[in-house]
Amino acid sequence: MGRVSHVGIFGAGSIGTAFALLFADAGFAVRIFDPDPSALERSRHVIDQRITELQRFTLLASNPSEVRELIEIVSSARTAASGAILVQEAGPEDVQTKQHIFEDLTAVTSDETILASASSAIPSSRFVDVHSAFRSLIGHPGNPPYLLRVVELVGNPSTEEQTILRAGQLYEQAGLSAVRVNREVDGFVFNRIQGAVLREAYALVGAEIIDPMDLDTLVQDGLGLRWSVAGPFATVDLNVRGGITAHAERMGSAYHRMAGALDTSKEWTDTLVAKVNCSRRKAVPLEQWDQAVADRDTQLMKQLNARTSNGGTTRD
Amino acid sequence: MGRVSHVGIFGAGSIGTAFALLFADAGFAVRIFDPDPSALERSRHVIDQRITELQRFTLLASNPSEVRELIEIVSSARTAASGAILVQEAGPEDVQTKQHIFEDLTAVTSDETILASASSAIPSSRFVDVHSAFRSLIGHPGNPPYLLRVVELVGNPSTEEQTILRAGQLYEQAGLSAVRVNREVDGFVFNRIQGAVLREAYALVGAEIIDPMDLDTLVQDGLGLRWSVAGPFATVDLNVRGGITAHAERMGSAYHRMAGALDTSKEWTDTLVAKVNCSRRKAVPLEQWDQAVADRDTQLMKQLNARTSNGGTTRD
Repeated sequence: MGRVSHVGIFGAGSIGTAFALLFADAGFAVRIFDPDPSALERSRHVIDQRITELQRFTLLASNPSEVRELIEIVSSARTAASGAILVQEAGPEDVQTKQHIFEDLTAVTSDETILASASSAIPSSRFVDVHSAFRSLIGHPGNPPYLLRVVELVGNPSTEEQTILRAGQLYEQAGLSAVRVNREVDGFVFNRIQGAVLREAYALVGAEIIDPMDLDTLVQDGLGLRWSVAGPFATVDLNVRGGITAHAERMGSAYHRMAGALDTSKEWTDTLVAKVNCSRRKAVPLEQWDQAVADRDTQLMKQLNARTSNGGTTRD
Repeated sequence: MGRVSHVGIFGAGSIGTAFALLFADAGFAVRIFDPDPSALERSRHVIDQRITELQRFTLLASNPSEVRELIEIVSSARTAASGAILVQEAGPEDVQTKQHIFEDLTAVTSDETILASASSAIPSSRFVDVHSAFRSLIGHPGNPPYLLRVVELVGNPSTEEQTILRAGQLYEQAGLSAVRVNREVDGFVFNRIQGAVLREAYALVGAEIIDPMDLDTLVQDGLGLRWSVAGPFATVDLNVRGGITAHAERMGSAYHRMAGALDTSKEWTDTLVAKVNCSRRKAVPLEQWDQAVADRDTQLMKQLNARTSNGGTTRD
């Protein structure tokens, strides 16, 4: 790799581990640190497991042993961060904790190191260090990041343009679609769209219009499947001859009328949440939750594999 | 097939043609009619083309020639509908046209025939015939129905329970997930959820928080991919240890706060629609629109094929 330096990861939970894997698979040397030694131990195990799974679905770009060799588990934040091109922070979703982490990272890095936080809801202006705010930003991935290969980039008011561009390049090199969010807004974009769906979904169940499992089926086999090959704008653009303009003309007012029919602004009551929970627990008892997560990931790997395959595969 | 009667299709556009294909592939004899003879001619061609594509992705249950033989193109509504177990109406989305069609269908069918409309937004109480309202309902599919294998069932206040149950069984036999919507509501459920996403998406673009193409990328590679393997409730249930209850406790108020930050109730202005259209036309000029639709369908077939495959496939 010559003069090119490494990527540092702070936090060895599922998010940090996934970032380590993605960067190493793209050929970056990675140093991962966690204040909790047991998290680091688990991380090594999870990395091995993920490599095997990704390999099985031909989703690994590099040789498994090369990927493993590129990931170094280190015992201090300084070793992980010092001299890194980018440090990916993936600590707990808590303002004070992130403030401390960013203070520490600022102290052990030079002005050439980008500091990116995986915060999923807290804007970075609430926790970045004043001395490194210009080289700090949000790099919020989907969950699980090693399978939802997308990251939203959100600067704070002090973030330099160059920081966002460079971070975007690095994430893209790691195989992620880097998407630019132009200013700090509650929930960024990913969780705002998820929130819009959840508020509508809870309102529909609350009004007894549909059962929770039926709503999930409708999205999984219908809307979600279609959104996995065409985003919301592309979807309606391809649904109406004449594209977006024709769609908005024909359907715009109907979509606004719909909004009025149900109140989605009400907080979800305990009774409503309990109703949805009851449906989910019938489908997946809590003791089978880990298996259900693993099954979801297997399905995601099948879909990812299919995206890049040529044509149909025979099953018989 | 012995005493079992056929399925009638009224309307040979893309929706009607898709239903013909689904029912025939499930072994039903199908009779399809359209008042426009040229639509019927096109339909025969489209059916042949779809059969070839579905076969390529191992998405056909039956033998191609058997499917073709089961679909009969007929020259009157009477021949299509008389004696059918179910007539699927897939005419224009227009109240008066549907009123006339349902009047005609009532006249040529007995009380044993279910009349289902593919209306995507108009509740059936606005167009069903008083004499057949008890055996009429909405069977609204996703688009394209031969690939989004889901249908929402919505009765009108007169629809008999038995009608909804029997229609659900028939759709399920045709390989569709039949989902029950308990009462007539603007947009039913499918388009209400799509509307929630579109209103949020337009508001985000309108506030210059994100570019339209970036928003589509975020959904396609992130949220949409995940929703294609787990519906909205299942998704958050599997995102937080402890499931739905833990998720609502930890995230509920954040999702409600988000709603306040942007006004999604504003009509989409011409300028806003033009901005989104401009992005889409750069990606897909209108003269390539048909090809883009065909490409989307190919991607959908790959994903459907992957859903039912065992494990990974190698690409090299």
